[in-house]
Amino acid sequence: MTNFKKTSTPMNIALDVMGGDHGPREIVAGAVAAARAYGVTVTLVGKPDAIQAELARHSIAGLDLPIVPASQVVEMEDKPATAVRTKPDSSMVVACELVRTGKAQAFVTAGNTGGALAAGIFQIGRMKGVLRPALLSPFPTVRGFCAVLDIGANADVRPEYLPQFAIMGTVYAQQVMAIPNPTVRILSNGEEAGKGNQLVMSAYELLEKTPGINFQGNVESKEVVEGLVDVVITDGFTGNIFIKTAEATARLLQKIMREELTRGLISTAGAFLARAALRRVGKRTDDSQFGGAVLLGLSNIVVVAHGRSNATAIQNAIRMAKQGLEYDLLGKIQIKLDQSSQSKSNTIAEAANLHENLS
Amino acid sequence: MTNFKKTSTPMNIALDVMGGDHGPREIVAGAVAAARAYGVTVTLVGKPDAIQAELARHSIAGLDLPIVPASQVVEMEDKPATAVRTKPDSSMVVACELVRTGKAQAFVTAGNTGGALAAGIFQIGRMKGVLRPALLSPFPTVRGFCAVLDIGANADVRPEYLPQFAIMGTVYAQQVMAIPNPTVRILSNGEEAGKGNQLVMSAYELLEKTPGINFQGNVESKEVVEGLVDVVITDGFTGNIFIKTAEATARLLQKIMREELTRGLISTAGAFLARAALRRVGKRTDDSQFGGAVLLGLSNIVVVAHGRSNATAIQNAIRMAKQGLEYDLLGKIQIKLDQSSQSKSNTIAEAANLHENLS
Repeated sequence: MTNFKKTSTPMNIALDVMGGDHGPREIVAGAVAAARAYGVTVTLVGKPDAIQAELARHSIAGLDLPIVPASQVVEMEDKPATAVRTKPDSSMVVACELVRTGKAQAFVTAGNTGGALAAGIFQIGRMKGVLRPALLSPFPTVRGFCAVLDIGANADVRPEYLPQFAIMGTVYAQQVMAIPNPTVRILSNGEEAGKGNQLVMSAYELLEKTPGINFQGNVESKEVVEGLVDVVITDGFTGNIFIKTAEATARLLQKIMREELTRGLISTAGAFLARAALRRVGKRTDDSQFGGAVLLGLSNIVVVAHGRSNATAIQNAIRMAKQGLEYDLLGKIQIKLDQSSQSKSNTIAEAANLHENLS
Repeated sequence: MTNFKKTSTPMNIALDVMGGDHGPREIVAGAVAAARAYGVTVTLVGKPDAIQAELARHSIAGLDLPIVPASQVVEMEDKPATAVRTKPDSSMVVACELVRTGKAQAFVTAGNTGGALAAGIFQIGRMKGVLRPALLSPFPTVRGFCAVLDIGANADVRPEYLPQFAIMGTVYAQQVMAIPNPTVRILSNGEEAGKGNQLVMSAYELLEKTPGINFQGNVESKEVVEGLVDVVITDGFTGNIFIKTAEATARLLQKIMREELTRGLISTAGAFLARAALRRVGKRTDDSQFGGAVLLGLSNIVVVAHGRSNATAIQNAIRMAKQGLEYDLLGKIQIKLDQSSQSKSNTIAEAANLHENLS
């Protein structure tokens, strides 16, 4: 059933050049690197002067990097929904418009996350049958990566959203992570069935009955970090705190280690080796290696990169969008969602029949 | 207003000897160390044979370590409420009974957390006016410790519980951490006001109007880890995931560092120094140094230590209970809760007056 064949649709990725903490410099550098590495078209959306000035710093012969002008910028401190409504010529809204009208196939941004969600949801729109889109992030574990969703698209969710998150995460893990039958667990405050808040307990019952997913029950943070699960589902509030806590702790611990090692090893050969070890640890936990989070459940692929993204992170965010298109992620999610709702209708129909037969 | 004077009530701490992963050996060793270090009475509750056998391993002349027999044990896998009801002669229930009848002043356990909560709530009972007790844990940050509550007593909370958590956390920080005017913030998925799920947003409004606390708004995990806040309040589900994620990430990163350092530095002088640095980092993040979590809001102090507690952790859990008694933590919480509800009644009365005057 699982199909790893790549499709060969044309690939034009609309990139918001104005978002992110580092401004157009890192974004354009990432676009150039991605266009060169993957042979995709990257449409640069933003202020043409700024984009031209950055492009001039690279040799771009043979690369397909068209510019689409946008005069406004959704700032990091803007209120998302308002910004998207009041800045129709912002790089975010214009880039989403390119996707909506079929001129581009995916949207990538390192700007205001709320703005990206609002622009995506309002301009691009939801996939048929999806209750709520969810933001999926690869999460580094001891054994590689797992997929965590939702990490922030929905601060409040209803139990019935979670089976859909599970389906979307399953398809992502099958296609992008090449895991044929990924395990799915729900993040909770205890591993045992029956542990959790009201949301987890209600969602648990629905997940047990959801066809097409390999649901294995609750999971605690420790097991996620140890890489014992492929897909972790949670509400966007808890998921956001989970991922930010892990990230903040990892960064801090590396900082403390660096201090402690410098204190003990200063000007010794050991210090050199220890720094090399720290660099390797840093690489194993570096989120610029996977680029960003992908918003699943809209009619097109949207990738939301960290505000602090450097050129490497942007390149990887574009790779993430490209993979989503290559593997026809959304098409396969749609099929699985349809099967699931079909099976639910069948169950309801069967129950109704049974009821009729009995009465 | 803040009063750091210690009181001199008699101090008898009832210790559940049968709880925890390491059995009576580490628990009794911790009790002996605490009785010696702090001059407190530690009542050892559990199977007398097991306790006697462990005591025989120590020189305990001059220490006050009475034994109270209990024939049953609440196991780690027991369902909390059922276990407490069906095991009336368990070490947990018997220890709480000692507290309820005034024979001991505090209860310490490393057993089943849910069981400890159930035994505490059912046997010891809530403090006057407290809607829900909350589990407070010290949390290691770059600058020392902050207090986080609730970390697991209430998986689902109502917004009105959080101002009480804030008051209990404030008194703890004032008395035990000696911070005169501790900052209080609510854990959220964004720092700005207006970020959060429905619970956070509703609680935020109540917290802004709560007298006697220094409420500073939302906080993200990163700022908590960096030590920028004294008291972090949250629901017990999110708090549990927050604290477990930080703990799991810190442990894992130290493991990876150890691997990386061993790989690079094997049999060099640098390896020795690097291991010393790792030990120092381990010490800075070692939770056995603070003992456990304290359940606030009951009529007496209850300390819930980690299941994996060793003798040091048990000694520190007993110290935590002793500090709670010395500083009359619960008495001071009661005063502040009364003031808060008094001020609320005044506000309601004033509003009623105003309404009368206007009509």
